Order: sequence, then C-alpha cells, then structure tokens
Amino acid sequence: MKKALKIVTIGGGSSYTPEFAEGLITRAAHLPVAEWWLVDIEDGKEKMEIVGQLAQRMFKKAGLDTKVVMTLNRKEALKDADFVTTQFRVGLLEARMKDERIPLNYNSIGQETNGAGGLFKALRTIPVILDICKEMKELCPKAWLVNFTNPAGMITQAAITYGKHERTIGLCNVPIGMTKGIAESLKEKESDVEVLMAGLNHFVWATHAYVNGENQITKSLNFLIDNPAEAPANFSHEKWDPSTLRSMNVIPCSYHRYYFDTEKMLQEEIENAKTKGTRAEVVKKVEEELFELYKDLELKEKPKQLELRGGAHYSDAACGVIDAIYNDSNARIVANTINNSTIRSLPPHAAVESTCIVNKSGAHPLAVEELPQWMDQWLKLIFSYQDLTIQAAVNGDYNALLQAFFINPLTPKGAKAADLIKDLMIAHEQYLPQFKDLITSYKK
Amino acid sequence: MKKALKIVTIGGGSSYTPEFAEGLITRAAHLPVAEWWLVDIEDGKEKMEIVGQLAQRMFKKAGLDTKVVMTLNRKEALKDADFVTTQFRVGLLEARMKDERIPLNYNSIGQETNGAGGLFKALRTIPVILDICKEMKELCPKAWLVNFTNPAGMITQAAITYGKHERTIGLCNVPIGMTKGIAESLKEKESDVEVLMAGLNHFVWATHAYVNGENQITKSLNFLIDNPAEAPANFSHEKWDPSTLRSMNVIPCSYHRYYFDTEKMLQEEIENAKTKGTRAEVVKKVEEELFELYKDLELKEKPKQLELRGGAHYSDAACGVIDAIYNDSNARIVANTINNSTIRSLPPHAAVESTCIVNKSGAHPLAVEELPQWMDQWLKLIFSYQDLTIQAAVNGDYNALLQAFFINPLTPKGAKAADLIKDLMIAHEQYLPQFKDLITSYKK
Amino acid sequence: MKKALKIVTIGGGSSYTPEFAEGLITRAAHLPVAEWWLVDIEDGKEKMEIVGQLAQRMFKKAGLDTKVVMTLNRKEALKDADFVTTQFRVGLLEARMKDERIPLNYNSIGQETNGAGGLFKALRTIPVILDICKEMKELCPKAWLVNFTNPAGMITQAAITYGKHERTIGLCNVPIGMTKGIAESLKEKESDVEVLMAGLNHFVWATHAYVNGENQITKSLNFLIDNPAEAPANFSHEKWDPSTLRSMNVIPCSYHRYYFDTEKMLQEEIENAKTKGTRAEVVKKVEEELFELYKDLELKEKPKQLELRGGAHYSDAACGVIDAIYNDSNARIVANTINNSTIRSLPPHAAVESTCIVNKSGAHPLAVEELPQWMDQWLKLIFSYQDLTIQAAVNGDYNALLQAFFINPLTPKGAKAADLIKDLMIAHEQYLPQFKDLITSYKK
Amino acid sequence: MKKALKIVTIGGGSSYTPEFAEGLITRAAHLPVAEWWLVDIEDGKEKMEIVGQLAQRMFKKAGLDTKVVMTLNRKEALKDADFVTTQFRVGLLEARMKDERIPLNYNSIGQETNGAGGLFKALRTIPVILDICKEMKELCPKAWLVNFTNPAGMITQAAITYGKHERTIGLCNVPIGMTKGIAESLKEKESDVEVLMAGLNHFVWATHAYVNGENQITKSLNFLIDNPAEAPANFSHEKWDPSTLRSMNVIPCSYHRYYFDTEKMLQEEIENAKTKGTRAEVVKKVEEELFELYKDLELKEKPKQLELRGGAHYSDAACGVIDAIYNDSNARIVANTINNSTIRSLPPHAAVESTCIVNKSGAHPLAVEELPQWMDQWLKLIFSYQDLTIQAAVNGDYNALLQAFFINPLTPKGAKAADLIKDLMIAHEQYLPQFKDLITSYKK
Repeated sequence: MKKALKIVTIGGGSSYTPEFAEGLITRAAHLPVAEWWLVDIEDGKEKMEIVGQLAQRMFKKAGLDTKVVMTLNRKEALKDADFVTTQFRVGLLEARMKDERIPLNYNSIGQETNGAGGLFKALRTIPVILDICKEMKELCPKAWLVNFTNPAGMITQAAITYGKHERTIGLCNVPIGMTKGIAESLKEKESDVEVLMAGLNHFVWATHAYVNGENQITKSLNFLIDNPAEAPANFSHEKWDPSTLRSMNVIPCSYHRYYFDTEKMLQEEIENAKTKGTRAEVVKKVEEELFELYKDLELKEKPKQLELRGGAHYSDAACGVIDAIYNDSNARIVANTINNSTIRSLPPHAAVESTCIVNKSGAHPLAVEELPQWMDQWLKLIFSYQDLTIQAAVNGDYNALLQAFFINPLTPKGAKAADLIKDLMIAHEQYLPQFKDLITSYKK
Repeated sequence: MKKALKIVTIGGGSSYTPEFAEGLITRAAHLPVAEWWLVDIEDGKEKMEIVGQLAQRMFKKAGLDTKVVMTLNRKEALKDADFVTTQFRVGLLEARMKDERIPLNYNSIGQETNGAGGLFKALRTIPVILDICKEMKELCPKAWLVNFTNPAGMITQAAITYGKHERTIGLCNVPIGMTKGIAESLKEKESDVEVLMAGLNHFVWATHAYVNGENQITKSLNFLIDNPAEAPANFSHEKWDPSTLRSMNVIPCSYHRYYFDTEKMLQEEIENAKTKGTRAEVVKKVEEELFELYKDLELKEKPKQLELRGGAHYSDAACGVIDAIYNDSNARIVANTINNSTIRSLPPHAAVESTCIVNKSGAHPLAVEELPQWMDQWLKLIFSYQDLTIQAAVNGDYNALLQAFFINPLTPKGAKAADLIKDLMIAHEQYLPQFKDLITSYKK
Repeated sequence: MKKALKIVTIGGGSSYTPEFAEGLITRAAHLPVAEWWLVDIEDGKEKMEIVGQLAQRMFKKAGLDTKVVMTLNRKEALKDADFVTTQFRVGLLEARMKDERIPLNYNSIGQETNGAGGLFKALRTIPVILDICKEMKELCPKAWLVNFTNPAGMITQAAITYGKHERTIGLCNVPIGMTKGIAESLKEKESDVEVLMAGLNHFVWATHAYVNGENQITKSLNFLIDNPAEAPANFSHEKWDPSTLRSMNVIPCSYHRYYFDTEKMLQEEIENAKTKGTRAEVVKKVEEELFELYKDLELKEKPKQLELRGGAHYSDAACGVIDAIYNDSNARIVANTINNSTIRSLPPHAAVESTCIVNKSGAHPLAVEELPQWMDQWLKLIFSYQDLTIQAAVNGDYNALLQAFFINPLTPKGAKAADLIKDLMIAHEQYLPQFKDLITSYKK
Repeated sequence: MKKALKIVTIGGGSSYTPEFAEGLITRAAHLPVAEWWLVDIEDGKEKMEIVGQLAQRMFKKAGLDTKVVMTLNRKEALKDADFVTTQFRVGLLEARMKDERIPLNYNSIGQETNGAGGLFKALRTIPVILDICKEMKELCPKAWLVNFTNPAGMITQAAITYGKHERTIGLCNVPIGMTKGIAESLKEKESDVEVLMAGLNHFVWATHAYVNGENQITKSLNFLIDNPAEAPANFSHEKWDPSTLRSMNVIPCSYHRYYFDTEKMLQEEIENAKTKGTRAEVVKKVEEELFELYKDLELKEKPKQLELRGGAHYSDAACGVIDAIYNDSNARIVANTINNSTIRSLPPHAAVESTCIVNKSGAHPLAVEELPQWMDQWLKLIFSYQDLTIQAAVNGDYNALLQAFFINPLTPKGAKAADLIKDLMIAHEQYLPQFKDLITSYKK
C-alpha cells in the first residue's frame, strides 16, 4: 500500500486550478491525494481563496477527503511534499501586457514565450524558480517538480542545471493537442497512435505517428494539408506552403508560425493591440468572468467557460505525469527533460521536449533519430538564444542578453536591441533584481 | 482479433530450439503462433529433424496446434513470415574450434565473439545475414528480424546499415543474467528493479538500478564486491579490484574480463585447450549428449540438461521481444538497435546495446546520460574495430581488416597480425568468398 | 629555374581584367607569365577583346613578352594551364538585376550574394564551375583553380566537394579591406599587424590583430567605435550598437549588416531601386564608361576610374595567391578552403574563409580558437543554407531549395518562398537546366 | 632595434646545456642574448656549475658577451625573463630508474614517457610546472615558456589549462628526426620537403611530405619499407608489417612501437634490465663521462660524445622556436600547443603535436585533415589516459589515476593496477605531495 500524496501547487490562485482539481478527482481511485497545498503571494491571495474554496467543494462533492490548504507561506507548504507543481506568473498579467506591447513599439513580435517578451519572462521567472529549487533541496529533496510556468523549456533547464533539482519535469499542453489532432487526421483512437515528438518547448515537431507499427506521419500530414478545415486550430493558422510541408515530412506545432510567418503574425498583433487588446488583455477579461463564476457557492465542478481560457489539457499533462510516476506506469508522455543524448545536435544540458517513458524513476526520453539539416539548424538556433538568456537571467549578464537578441530571429539587433532592452528593463524593474545596476545606470 | 503468427527460425537445428519452443508454449495464451518454420542447411538437417520433432511433441502435449515445419528451402520459409529469428552458425562448431585454437598459436585470445576469433566469425556471418536481408526484402519486407547470431552487435549493425532491413533487433542473454543478478543483490524482485544498461554487445554496463525511483547501483555494486560468493558467475570470475569498481560506479558484464584481465584469460584458454578442450569442444560434447536425449520419443519438454549448454534466457529474450511487438506492450528490454542518438559518443550508425521500450513499432532505446571518459573511450575503441570489421566483411577489404586488428586490444598488430590473418583466412576459406583473391594469393 | 606560367582567366571580358594585368606586371620580376589566356562566351567577346587589347598594350609598355590570348574555346585555353582564375558571371549583369529586383517584390533583400538573389546566383553558377572542374581534370589536372566568382564560398565548396578539384582556392576582397582598415585603426603598417580572420565568405570576422605578439583587436574595435568617420566605409555603414560590438570583441565585415540591420538595408534597396537603380544597374553604367575608356588605344595602364567599380584589391588577392604558390612563400592570406578541422563547429566539407599560409602545396588554414556561442550559431546557420543550396544546385533538388529558404534569415518562408522561387526560376530559366522539369510545370 | 634577450633555463644543470649554448651561439647574429640564467636545485648545483662554466667558455670563445648566470633562486632568475625553457627532471635519474624498473615487476612496460612510468613522471612533474607558471604570472607574465620536460604533451597541457600560461610551447626532438629521415628517403634537401605532422607527443605521425607541391608520403613510406637499412634508427626498430604500413599511408614515430609491438619491447626491457641496465642506468654512466669532459677547462665547445646521450636536435628545436618568435619568421615547426580545432577528434583543451607556423604571436597550428578511423581512435585513447593523468596529478585524484591505467594499453588493470600504483607511490613519495593521504594509508 503506497501512501497518499502531498501535492503543492505554486501559483495556486491560477484560473487553471479547478481543472487541476478535476484531474485529481478523475484519477482518485488510483492516485490518492491526502493534502493539496495551494501557495500564492499576497497579490494573488484573493484569487487563491476563490479557487481553493471551489476545489474544496469539488472534492467534497466527489466524496474525497483530500485536504485543500491555502497559504502564503511557501516553505510551510513545501515541507515533505511529494510533488510540487508550478504555474505562477511573476508580475501577473500586468507584466505579460508589457511583454506584449513594448516590443510592438519596435515593430517586433510581442509574445509571452517568443521574441523579446519571452526572453524577459525568462529573466523574471528564473530567479524565482531557483529560489524554489533551493527551498525544495532543504524541505522536500525527493519531491518531483512539475513545471508548467512558461517559457517552460528555459525554466526547466534552469531548474535542473542551475537549481540542481534533477527531479524536474517540464510540461506543455501543445503536444497533447497535436497528438489528438494527428489521431483524428488518421481516423484512429488516440491510444492507437504512437506519436513521437522532438524539439524544444513551443518549437516541437511530430516526427512519427505509428499505427500498428507503421509510420503514418505522411498520411496525417497530407490529410491536414488537404483538409485545412478539419485541421486543429493551431495547424490551420499557419498557412504553410504544401510543398514546404511535404519536403519536411513532419508536423509543426502552432508556435512555429512566429518564426515562419513572422510578418503576418506581427501585423495581427499590431491590429489586435489596437482593437480587441493583446492576448493578456483578453485573458484578463476572461479571467475576471471566470472568477465571478468560481465564487458561486453552488458551483462544484469545473465550469465549461474555463475552456475559453486556452489552457486545455494542462490538467491531463500534470496529473498524467504525477500518475505515471506514482503508479510506475511507463506511460508515453511528451515532456521537457535534460537532453543528455536525446537530440544529438543539441548539447547534453539543453532542456528538450520529446516523447518520454514516465515511471517511478522519472521521465526517460526516447533517443531521437537523426534530424534533417534544416530542423537541426533551427533547433540549434532556438536553443542557443535560450541558453544565452538563461545565462543572462542567472548572472545578470547584459552581454549574454545582447547576444541572445543577436541570434533570436524575432528580436531586433544592435542599437535597436539595446533600446528595446532598456525599455523592458525599466518596465519590469521590480522583478529583475539581477539587473539592478544596469537599470540604475539607465536612469542617470 | 490479431492473426496468429508465422515465425521462421534460421539455424533451426540448434540445440536451443527446445527452449524456444518452451518460450512459445508458455506465452501461447497471448501470443498465438500458427506456423513455426525451422530452416537449416544440409549439414544441419539431421539435428533439425531431431529438435523439430521434439518441438512437435512439446506443442502437442501443450494442446497447441502450432504447425512445426522443417525445411532446407529458406525462401519458401521466409514467404509472408511475421518474425524471423536467426541463430545459425556459419561453419558449425568446427569453425568455432578454429577461431578458438588458431589465435592461441600467436599467444592471443581465442574466443568466438572477441579477439581474432570474433572478427573472423563476423567475416563469415555478415555475407549470410545480408543474403537473408535481401530475401526478406522480397518475401516478407515487414517481418521483424530478431537476431541472436553472434557477434550480435556487428551482425545487427550490418543487417540494418548494409542489409537495409530496419526492422532488425539484436539480442543477447548477458543483460538478462545481469538484471537478475542485480535484483538478487538488492534483495528485490526482478520486476521491482528498473535496470538501465548501455554499451555494445558483450561490452555492456549496468549504469542505473532504480528501486522505487531511487538509483541503487552503488548498493548493488557494493554487495557484489563484498559477497563474491553470492555474485553471479559472470561477475565473480572477474576479480576486479574493489577500488577500480567503486571508481566506476557501474556494473560490468562478464565479457569485459577479456579486456581487463587479458593475460589471465589467455592463460586459462591455453590451459583448457591442453586439457578439457576449448569451449567449442566442450559444447560439442554437451550437444552430442543433448541430441541423444532429444531423440527420445518420450521426451516432450525441454530437458534440464540444456541449461549446461550455456544459452539460458535466450528464449526469454527472443520470445519476449516477439511478445512485446505483437502485444504492443512497451516492455523494457535490453536490445541491440541502431544508435541514432542513444549514446552520444558513438556515431548514429553504430549498433548499441541498451535499454529499450519495445512495442508495435519496434525497439526504442532510451537516451543515455553522458558517460564517464574512461567508459566513453572504451566504447569508441570497441565500436571502431567492429565498424572496420564490418567494412572488411562487406567489401572484402584487407586494409580495413588490418586496421581492425590494429585497434583491437586483444589481437596482435603488424607482421604478427598479418600472419594470424593468413592462418585464419586459409582455415575458413570456404566461408569467406569475399576474400577469395587474397586467399588465392596466400597459396602461391 | 622554374618555368614561366600559363594562366587562364575565365570570364576574361570582365572590367577587372586590367587590374589583374597590373597585378601580374607588378610581380613580373619574380612571377614570370609566358601566356595569359582570356576566355569568354560569345556574348562577352566584344568586351574581352577590348580588355585583352588593353592588357596587351600594358604588357608591352612594361617591356614584358607575356602573350595575351583571347578565345571562346575554353578547352583549348585550359590545356596545360598552371593557374585558372574564374571571374565569370552567368547571365551577365542582366541576371544580377533580376536577382536584385525580383525579391524586392516580396519585401525581401535583393542582393547578389545574400538572400534569394545570392541563392539563385549559386544555382546558375555551380553547374558551370562543375563543368570547368571536369575539363580541368582532363586538360590540366594539376592546375590551381583560383575562384573569385560569387558567391565565392559556395562556388569553392562545390568545386572541391562535387567537382573534386582539390586544388581550388576561393578569394574575396573583403578581408583585404578589413586588414587595411584594422592596421590603420592601430596606426601600424599593414605588414606589422597579423590579423586572423574566421568565418564564411561575406560572413567573416576578424578575431585577432597581433602587433608585436599582443592581440590588439579590442583596441582596434574601440577606435572604430569611437571614430566612425575614420572607420572603413564598410564598417561605418553598419551602425552597430557599441555595447553589442564590445560584447563580441571581434570586428565584423560589411556584409553582416544584411543580417543585423535587415530592415534598414531593405529600405535602402527599395529606395535605390526607385531612384538611382539597383547595384547592378549602377555597375552597368560604370562599366559602359570604363569600356569606353579601355577602348582608347593610348591607354596603356589601369585607369583610375576602375576603382569606382568596387572590386579593388581583387588583383592583390589573386596575384598574391599565385605568387605565394609559385614562390612557395608561406604568405599569410585570407582564403576560402575546405574546412577540415579549421572551424570545429562547421563540418569538414564546408568552405570556410580564414587566415591561411599559402605555399607550393596550397592554402593551409590555421586552426581557429573556439568561437563564442553567438558566432558559432550564426556560422552554422549561414553554412546550412549554403550547403542546402549547393545540394539544390547540383541535383536540381527543389526540396533542398525550399529548405535553404526555410533557414536563410533573409528569405521568405513557406508559401511566399514558393512564389518567389517560381518568379526567379522563370526569370533565370535559360541558366537553370537542372530545374527544367520544375520550370515546365510552372508554365502549365 | 629589438632588445637583447633574457633567457632562463630551468634544470640548467642538464647535460644538454652545452648543445643549447651552441644553438644560441650559432644564431647570435640575429638572436642577441644579453643574459642566460641557469636555474637548478641544490642537488643539481654541482652539475650546473660545470655546464655553466663550459657555456661561459663557449660564449667567450665565440666573442659574445652573453652573461651566463647560475642560481638556485628561481624567482630571481624569472624576473623580467623573455623566454623560459624547462628541461628539469623531478627526482633526477634515480626517479627515472624506478619508473623503468618497478613496472617490469608486473610484466608491464617500464619507460619514462609511456606506460606506468610515464604516468608517474607526469604526476611528479605537473605540480612543479604549475608552480613555475604561478611564478611567471607574477615575475614575467609575457615571457614564453618553452618546455622540453617529458612527458612533453601532458606538461604542456597542464601548463596551459591549469597553469593558465597561454604562452607555452612544448617541444620534442622526435619530429625533427622524422623530418630529416623523410627528406633523406626522398633524396631531397630538408628545406625542400614540407612535412606535415599530426598527433600527440611521442604518438605523432607524418601525414604529408610535399615536394614541389605534390604529396610524396607514399613514396617516402615505400622507400623506408624497401630499404630498412637506410631508414632512420627509430623506424627500422619497429618491424612494422609492410601491408599494415601501406594500409595506413602515413609514417609513424618511433614511440609507436611501445603500443604496436608491446610484447617484444617488454622482452627487450626485461633483458636490458638484467644485463646492461635500464635506459636511465645507461644514461647515468654516459652523463658521468660527459661531466668529466665538461670539467676540462680547455673544452670550449660541445663535445662530440654528447650525441650518444640521445637528445640530438633539442637545441635546434628550442633555439628554433625562440628565433622564430623573436624574428617573427613564420617558420614551420612541429610543436605541442593547445588543440583548439587543430585535430577535430580531440577536444579543444588537448595538447596536440602538429605542424605550426611560429611567429611573434606564438605557434599557430595548421588545421589537420580528417584522420582515418584507426588513427583517430588511437589518438583519442592516448589523449584520454593523458587527460585523466593530468586530472590525477592536479587534484591528487586516485580514481582518475585508476581510470587512466584502465584505458592505457600499456598498464595493468584492476587489482594489478592498484598494486603497481601502490609500489610507485611509495617509491616516489617525496615528489607526490598531492597523494600524501593515500601514501599514508598504504603504510598503515
């Protein structure tokens, strides 16, 4: 008999929390949870209490005695935890709005995981994840850290290489959506298709889709090309040229469009910023409505409206990993892990996103076949700017940051880069202690 | 409902065949076999009929209607096969005796998978495996080739890279024995220990042994050091220095002793050759006795005496792989596959032996962590002579063969190498068509 | 006593030819040239005769008996040549105009060595250089091929890897200008500064500038930053951010600006195309004027006006290499050679541009120190699209071409790439025999 | 006008010193030396005075006013030095005798640069070279360190990577002898043959021998094979098989025979140890006789008998490098430098021995072509044990030392390695402060 778990969720006041509760409830028969601690900061307290109480009602309705604890005291929560999940956002949606709007002033993509915005989200988040790793080392050294905080690849890499918390697994919902879409395109049940993915977070490709031992990726790709209306939202957005896609013979994720259709994506962002608001601004409104719903004491389940929020499948991903570890199930899950030898063209310390076997000893990525030159090259490029960004975040290294901009295809270079960096540094000043001297120098 | 299988075993007259039959019978409930074809050559016909008839009696006793077919016509057998297993020995035990005795004349290890003998076994076997691949391409292109023929690594690599039969999986019983030994050393059930292995066939190391998610390899290693009497036969033979083993913190396989205790192994071989005979000569006697037993019409099961033969667990390995593929079970099996990115320090086309997940789409090796410098170096060395040997075998390339000797730590170099190669070429002349001109030139 | 040389210049009708003549005349004392053959095609015959006759007058005036031969028969010229220089332009300036103008329709850089234009110049030129290599193999297998035809890196790589003419050296005048500029910035004589360069053609960096054994690259860089007015034209154009340059601590070449200030470069091109014409159009006028001058029978030297043409120092570069080989002088020259191990992050078959020692046995590149991550990454990116372009050029491989566009930072991707490729294919149809089927399919 | 030099020679009491003096005298016209400081320890004082006074007589006879200073005060000597040469032997010939004799007890090669003896010489010497680097950093940071102390590759690597003295160049006389032998085999003057070498110290190969721009290495190799009597002593010793040599198509150095004819070399060593003494014992007698000669006040030149000592050409090598740096001559010299990208298959921090261009900014190795698999593999093996030995020497790391033995083809493994290490540790105790605790533990 294995013991019931203590799970801790940092950023507990997130609007995703009810989905997570649902995930735990669905799996309760084989995944017993004794305590679920939600942790947040003072600014998130109110939201945390709303979702925490909703979660309590949901567990009660399900007849489960899981104890939901809400706290601002992270250390108390971490003590003897079995799993720690992270879904916090440093600076809340206000910071995201800045990441989205400020780069637009430079005619440059403003987005929370790519371009200048993604880099600054990493700069703000990495110091916090390193603090969490430090506390875990002391308070729950054997706990698994399951991270969804974006940019999930960089955060995972920082936690393992600088935070030295090897038991870290990074997750994203993009591969889940892709897997579902590929199965649909092949008219197969999801469980009958073995999809292999490889790449980096938000820059991943499905390279194989086995049905009965035969790779059907070409068939899936052709279907998606020929039936854009039936393709998953992500894919159809992209307007890839069919001959380009066929020359690749792999299926891209939705975020690739930032790199391969940059101009159009930028125009959309500029247009949105003028009209309906940036993504953060839209999400803010959705969240306000959601929290109004959550407050309803009669509500005892995840409301349908949450799906508009955009985080579908996070629950699957996170609870799925906890389940696979707890039950030693060798489940096939796409996760972010340290590369080691998974993708030969990236260095061992890179966090890669790829198909893993998850069991009691963690997530074991499957070795990846040699990649074509064009993909190899793009992966190296994306990895390199992320690696430099992590160095910049950890050491407050302005040179590394300039160089990250220098190789990131979505950011300005040279003098324009220096100006944009300055604007973002000043805007996010309170979350960038490692750049204190630089920011002070800007103000002189 | 999946269809019942057609399995073909090339080298069907092997003394192992009854164990294989037992493996199929044990798994019959979930692994239905309609036809099992045994294939052999004229010289093996008598033995094949003995073991084939024994197998027929075994299936009958088990109440199974599996049809056992014996044939000398390989092409007929291969037609529409689902699985092809290879356990043939080119030149039979007589050739092995030469591989074992001739190198001793040069004060050099004589052994069937290592040293000069192992190289010549590869030279004889590779042309045959390439013929089989060619026939499979025509007659059963989707069948899986499960190879146990030694040297299993080189044969697997040749089948995939030169034979272009991607659906090839190489097997060995050494990792099975190691896994059992490690579990025993930890006082755990085998199924509760997740052993990770990495290396090359007959040069593999157990690098991790997870129990409840914790790596216990050091504990296992210490037990084996402190309790040599309880260590598996393979391990205790080796007389490794405890401090050397502790500095490595991985568990070696038994064949490493040829490289790390060469002098003593050579003395043992010389002594044995003078007294009880070489291994082939011992096996020959054991086999003669076995076949006497097999002939007994009352015998309807695998006789106990087979265990003396030394091939224990081959049945587990081969039937286990067929089972995992047929039932799509994601079983964890140590197998020889093409490296791709599995072990970073070896090139993608190397056949590596490592922990794989086996399912309908084949054997997927888990990515391996960075290896320590000493292990990395030894793997490269062993791989390189194997790679050169394969080139020599495929192209009849004497220079590549000389260079393989030049880097193989167990073979003589320079003039002595040339002399030993000459002796072995002449001894094995009839099985080395690719070196016909060279052998002719020797005779002038 | 070494024999006087036979030099062949393919594209002999070039406006650069008088500079080349001057280079030979200056070096005549230690570099005796018996015959100089100019080769051109029918369309270039008139120009060749003008510059050939000017060259004859120049040699005569210098009191040299070098025989200048003009021919349309390339094979006759190549027979027993010692050196072959290539400075031809497939499709003449008209083709260049298309390379410059058509991409602008797609809001994309139009330039003859970078972006879509550079790729198509490679597609047109590589088949011709391979023909030349084939003829040289037969007619002058030991001759050195000294190539200036752009894109010089790709042409050199194709000649060595596909043309199998190992004795190929690629040249560019950019490193010569950089070396002069660096010496001036340090107030030293050029001969007293040992500049080390590394990179790819038109994407090269000066990494060291030794004066009396001390690396003064930082001093040079700081001077160039602080004194833009005194910086060489190439450098000052770039408006690099000082902090970015200081973080790099190497000196970029002028072509980098296409990658790092893309938007501005594009705007300049668009503006020029509307007003004074593209570069090809400007050059066309300059050339018309030059050829008027060249026709003057009283002209017996290189006219000053040639310097406006933009090819200054080509003479130095080409004659310098011929001189260093002929006189076995171990001269330090920046050249394009096969990488081998020169730059670790690029594969052995890449053509790299770096500091070489040139003597009788050819150009030996000095091994390059490990490069910083950002530079390493950019070099890999540029190399990869070039490598794919060469594959496309040799094999008429449309997929490789799409993939080259896919990783080239200056070209559109996906559907837009397909459209631009179509326009350029049709425009250059007569020079792209390897894409005949594709072009035919466009027209249906 | 460049200033006259201050040269410091550590291990000044060496019997080689008169040859060095001769090298300086020969070059005096273009290599002015103001002061030559000889440094030694108390035990070497008497010898230093003998050779120092001989050197003074030699300079005087040559009419040079070079001041020869003898001192036991290394720091005083190093102050403001321009060049520091190192030719010391930690533990004198007595230590070498132990390195040669003790391994023989284990039936293992006993030699001062290879096998267990070579490893222990590195363990003794590296702490001293690091002290010297530290003092140079303070007293003469811009001086060049020219090291001949063996094992020259490991010492050079340690000085650069751990001593952080980048201006270190390692030298050996083996490549000089090879170059001379190759020129003779081709009946050419040495200056007319451009020999390219690549490898590691005492494990180097001549890969090219250009005469008039054509590679004649095959011709040279064939001559050496066909005319063993005319081959250099080193080569003829080896009794390489002609077909093996031809398959390699490169020329080995003499030390390769320890690896490729190990058994015979071992038997020779055992025989010598019983009869005429080990090499150190022979050298000891030769040195005693030499120093008797050196004492003769009438002796004012290098005596012929020095050539028996075995260190011919060291003078050429060391003075040649000093000359090339001082006169900025771009001389082609085979030296040990940090690899960077010189040999792709070795890591950047390896010290490689290869053809360099030497000038004011140091020794610049030429990039090396891709090496054949067998050579690549051997280089990696030798490098890896050296790299582990350096780690052991710097950190007193017993595990690294065991692992170095584990991959060194000339040393015992496992328990036998542990015993031999123990014997050597105790024998050299006073020179191995970094292993103090280990040695203490042995004695309990």
